[in-house]
Amino acid sequence: MPTSVILLAAGQGSRMRSDLPKVLHPLAGAPLIAHALASARGLDPERVIVVTGVGAEEVDAALAELDPEARSVRQPEQRGTGDAVRVALPELEGATGDIVVLYGDTPFIRPETLEAMIAARAEGAAVVILGFEAAEPGAYGRLILDDTGDLLAIVEAREATEAQLAIRLCNCGVVAADAALLPGLVAEIRDDNAKGEFYLTDIVALARNRGLTAKVIVCDEAETLGVNSRADLAAAEAAFQARARSEAMENGVTLTDPATVWFAHDTHVGRDTVIGPNVFFGPGVTVESGAEILPFCHLEGCHVSRGSRVGPFARLRPGAELAEHTHVGNFVEIKNAIVDEGAKINHLTYVGDGHVGARTNIGAGTIFCNYDGVFKHHTEVGADVFIGSNSALVAPVRIGDGAMVGAGSTVTEDVPAGALAVARGRQSNKAGLGTRLMSRLRALKSGKAPH
Amino acid sequence: MPTSVILLAAGQGSRMRSDLPKVLHPLAGAPLIAHALASARGLDPERVIVVTGVGAEEVDAALAELDPEARSVRQPEQRGTGDAVRVALPELEGATGDIVVLYGDTPFIRPETLEAMIAARAEGAAVVILGFEAAEPGAYGRLILDDTGDLLAIVEAREATEAQLAIRLCNCGVVAADAALLPGLVAEIRDDNAKGEFYLTDIVALARNRGLTAKVIVCDEAETLGVNSRADLAAAEAAFQARARSEAMENGVTLTDPATVWFAHDTHVGRDTVIGPNVFFGPGVTVESGAEILPFCHLEGCHVSRGSRVGPFARLRPGAELAEHTHVGNFVEIKNAIVDEGAKINHLTYVGDGHVGARTNIGAGTIFCNYDGVFKHHTEVGADVFIGSNSALVAPVRIGDGAMVGAGSTVTEDVPAGALAVARGRQSNKAGLGTRLMSRLRALKSGKAPH
Amino acid sequence: MPTSVILLAAGQGSRMRSDLPKVLHPLAGAPLIAHALASARGLDPERVIVVTGVGAEEVDAALAELDPEARSVRQPEQRGTGDAVRVALPELEGATGDIVVLYGDTPFIRPETLEAMIAARAEGAAVVILGFEAAEPGAYGRLILDDTGDLLAIVEAREATEAQLAIRLCNCGVVAADAALLPGLVAEIRDDNAKGEFYLTDIVALARNRGLTAKVIVCDEAETLGVNSRADLAAAEAAFQARARSEAMENGVTLTDPATVWFAHDTHVGRDTVIGPNVFFGPGVTVESGAEILPFCHLEGCHVSRGSRVGPFARLRPGAELAEHTHVGNFVEIKNAIVDEGAKINHLTYVGDGHVGARTNIGAGTIFCNYDGVFKHHTEVGADVFIGSNSALVAPVRIGDGAMVGAGSTVTEDVPAGALAVARGRQSNKAGLGTRLMSRLRALKSGKAPH
Repeated sequence: MPTSVILLAAGQGSRMRSDLPKVLHPLAGAPLIAHALASARGLDPERVIVVTGVGAEEVDAALAELDPEARSVRQPEQRGTGDAVRVALPELEGATGDIVVLYGDTPFIRPETLEAMIAARAEGAAVVILGFEAAEPGAYGRLILDDTGDLLAIVEAREATEAQLAIRLCNCGVVAADAALLPGLVAEIRDDNAKGEFYLTDIVALARNRGLTAKVIVCDEAETLGVNSRADLAAAEAAFQARARSEAMENGVTLTDPATVWFAHDTHVGRDTVIGPNVFFGPGVTVESGAEILPFCHLEGCHVSRGSRVGPFARLRPGAELAEHTHVGNFVEIKNAIVDEGAKINHLTYVGDGHVGARTNIGAGTIFCNYDGVFKHHTEVGADVFIGSNSALVAPVRIGDGAMVGAGSTVTEDVPAGALAVARGRQSNKAGLGTRLMSRLRALKSGKAPH
Repeated sequence: MPTSVILLAAGQGSRMRSDLPKVLHPLAGAPLIAHALASARGLDPERVIVVTGVGAEEVDAALAELDPEARSVRQPEQRGTGDAVRVALPELEGATGDIVVLYGDTPFIRPETLEAMIAARAEGAAVVILGFEAAEPGAYGRLILDDTGDLLAIVEAREATEAQLAIRLCNCGVVAADAALLPGLVAEIRDDNAKGEFYLTDIVALARNRGLTAKVIVCDEAETLGVNSRADLAAAEAAFQARARSEAMENGVTLTDPATVWFAHDTHVGRDTVIGPNVFFGPGVTVESGAEILPFCHLEGCHVSRGSRVGPFARLRPGAELAEHTHVGNFVEIKNAIVDEGAKINHLTYVGDGHVGARTNIGAGTIFCNYDGVFKHHTEVGADVFIGSNSALVAPVRIGDGAMVGAGSTVTEDVPAGALAVARGRQSNKAGLGTRLMSRLRALKSGKAPH
Repeated sequence: MPTSVILLAAGQGSRMRSDLPKVLHPLAGAPLIAHALASARGLDPERVIVVTGVGAEEVDAALAELDPEARSVRQPEQRGTGDAVRVALPELEGATGDIVVLYGDTPFIRPETLEAMIAARAEGAAVVILGFEAAEPGAYGRLILDDTGDLLAIVEAREATEAQLAIRLCNCGVVAADAALLPGLVAEIRDDNAKGEFYLTDIVALARNRGLTAKVIVCDEAETLGVNSRADLAAAEAAFQARARSEAMENGVTLTDPATVWFAHDTHVGRDTVIGPNVFFGPGVTVESGAEILPFCHLEGCHVSRGSRVGPFARLRPGAELAEHTHVGNFVEIKNAIVDEGAKINHLTYVGDGHVGARTNIGAGTIFCNYDGVFKHHTEVGADVFIGSNSALVAPVRIGDGAMVGAGSTVTEDVPAGALAVARGRQSNKAGLGTRLMSRLRALKSGKAPH
């Protein structure tokens, strides 16, 4: 049966105290809404409608990048979840099968959970609500079941009896409903409540009134974690990281101190790779097996091949591609550059927009001068090259295979294969002048000589 | 009513196992005693008397810097808190109103708590003791109340009856007393106890004996945390950090992993600033709103303006002032330098004692050579300047607006506005010499050629 | 009485999901088996026999380095602990006194615990088993005592009665046995059980059958922590670190945030040293008293003397020896180099294979060019030298006492004491050319000029 998704992303998130729309705050290296979109896409839906409101332009811009096929509709006023769904429904006119309602600030709903809701729909429930056993039910809406285990109603905490408050099965907000029935049910929702809002949860009672069946699927409370404050966001990040760290270890990755390795939503690390304390993965990183990421590294948008060693204090930026058995050492930055097998870039170096050939050694303090103030240029370094320390390679420039560059050189012209290039000033030693200069400076400082 | 403070800071702190006086150990970037002095100053006191003993010279030197108006008196021997107060009282001769006794190793007493003690004094209590409900009362002195809720006595744990030991209301040590009565009460304290010390707490019973009233103000146990060991110090630091992190998040700052951001006592961070994992703030840092502090940064005594991006792996030292929308990237150190709007200093650079103009780009590996071995000199770089990578700017030197410096240059003379400066050796390529040199080195290594 | 040790290290560790033998996974900077070997050596044993199996060549190679006197024997098939001991016994032919059986994946058994087992043997027990009170007994074998407190039997959990399952005293696996009796007992072990393995624990019942005495020594559960998965490994690392951090603080070291300091098994830090957050110690580090290790440092195989200051963002590699009151600052790497008293190396510098004399200042961005592509060479810098910033010292080279090197120099020849060396290109300023170049680049970019 076809499925469509309505993703609610209109909320202000005032407790975030932010000018950024809540659903654009980052979690595991991606905006919150990207996680909800991933849950949505797991259903292989025909259409995804995102309801925007506060900061709609920013959310639309993010959507254009994250999920260009999702359509967005604007909810003019914040009048409750029922109103938000009502605004989205015209975009789903003629939809059949299921409509699933998800939330842009609820990033952890698992595909298996949504599949269970769809399965309950297929077994005849007009409306399926996602519930969870709350450790502290507090202000959550309580799910009231009938004797057969069907859902009778959702009771808001402030309207619940004492007996109802004792129920720990609570409403998480996610809904799967019959696409043919949902518009009619939503149209009947009323705003005659304390807040004057339209609550989507009212469709349970409305469906029951029509003699339709409502069911509950129960998920783990951890899946229902929503983000309403910076503290919630930090808690969500911690929850994501705990799971990612645990999975990495189960897959045969050593994390010396798991609490100080931060993964992104899409990090892949191969078996028998060892990751030291304090390693940060931004989005888009793949590390093959048997690599070593030493402490204090920052990786983003890069690939590290089998048997390579990175760090400590290394930064790999987008487009860094390390072949097998390469070494990238301390205070080294690599950006948009391919480093071939066995090459070594060990100390205080910037490799930007370049290619480093196999077995080549880049000396300490080397700078790839890739920028002329307007354009970025490419530096091509061949295989088996030796770049002396503290050299500057001024792009565009090519260093041929087997060439050498003398330490301290500023290379502005191509170096043929096998050649030695030297580009530096000649040394002159002036006897005694060091002593005289320093004496004079010290005398100045002590006031014994005029400045 | 006027208030005076006696701050006890004479203790040895032998469990610290340190040559540094206990009250000078750092907490949140300031000595312990600075936190107690801040509590004291919150009372707007007429006089602050610090009682020193162990390491008195060092404590006095710190006081001269932290709070020059505080006076210090030396307690010749460690004979108890009563003795310490007695030593201080001559400095408060003629004082009226309140005398508050605080402790240099107890950094978390809140101003509101002290105000409540002062208020209780104003309502007629001759002596007000600060108490707390101890989670584990253990060896703390127990506060015995009478039927009216007034304080009857303080009983040391080792002298308490079983019934008294069950009391969880304990003595934290902080006292507010009538300035006119305190000298007389202190004079009556006796050292006829197991340790042969004079306990300040005896003034409760002495006051009651005179028919005066003693009261208790109860604070949260967290406020009473005292530092007696390195583990206590770490616990105090953790308590401070937990509160500072929580406050930052409530104020709209994103902390990706709150447990790995360390604030100083005076850090200010604006709303919608995002701080990645592993960022350390030393004292004196202000970050405006909408900035981004990437992982692995160390900031101290600096200012980061709205919309700027810092890190990863950046160090801002005292006097670094970043204007709006500046970028400071990896392995960059900035000290005593103003960086104007939109300037970029992205890689492996040292900017010391200088000024970088608006929109200027400082290339990778640039060094501001600010030191001649004796003096520090200034480097002035104008607006819209392009400094080629791996350059050295030898201060004092001025680079005019719109000038360019070629990569690899060592600039020793001023560069006029709009000029191009190049200061490097000319390149020579020697055909085949790279190959021959490397072959010879390899032959030497393999023993096939003489060294 | 003489003691010998059999160390079982043949297991596959399939839950590690690793190609590396389990006992070679690192803990606190040393392979797991090194920790067990240290426990063994604490007994001053006559012989240590290591039973290897999976990855035996790799384990043997590690043993050759860690403990050359240990002998290894190969267990051809994984047939249980009884079989492993049987394989080892021929290497102990004629042994008298005690044989202690330890495990390569159980790193925390304390010397005091083993001594207690030996003492129980001396008092007449033929077999002594190490037990612990398990918080969650689960699948551990239960220790069944008789009325006198002697050990009656070890019952596997799956064969235990409900009453036996309620016993929390569990078997940790470590055994001390009479060297004269052990071969006979082991020979009687049968594999007639569910797994078809030979269990060493059967010797308890076999000994009792012969009328011999078996005893239990009880240790803390923390000592018995074994490593079977990457999560176990991380937990063991955390346990090690917690203890090491606590000990450091007790010894008078300040750890600003103990959770972010990682010690190796052999780290020594002196009293009144302050260690900031995020400091990683690899093996072989000694820090004397009164030093300061600022945040974000990585130290390995190095020595830091009294009163020195390191970091932030410093890396000390093996052979770095800092004398008293030296300063090593940000983005500085030091390897195989002696730095004399009071020398300063503060910014963006690589010192490799060298010597820096007393009070010498190495300017920012200096590179010791120690490598020619094949050989490493030495750089000798005298006392009271001033190396200007962004210099390259091309080894082998000597800079005499009191000499100066101008900023931006590439020094290839020795500099006599007291001399000034300058080795850089001459500066030329071309008026207006900066402006013209940048205008042309911008025009190219905007498409208004041909490329």
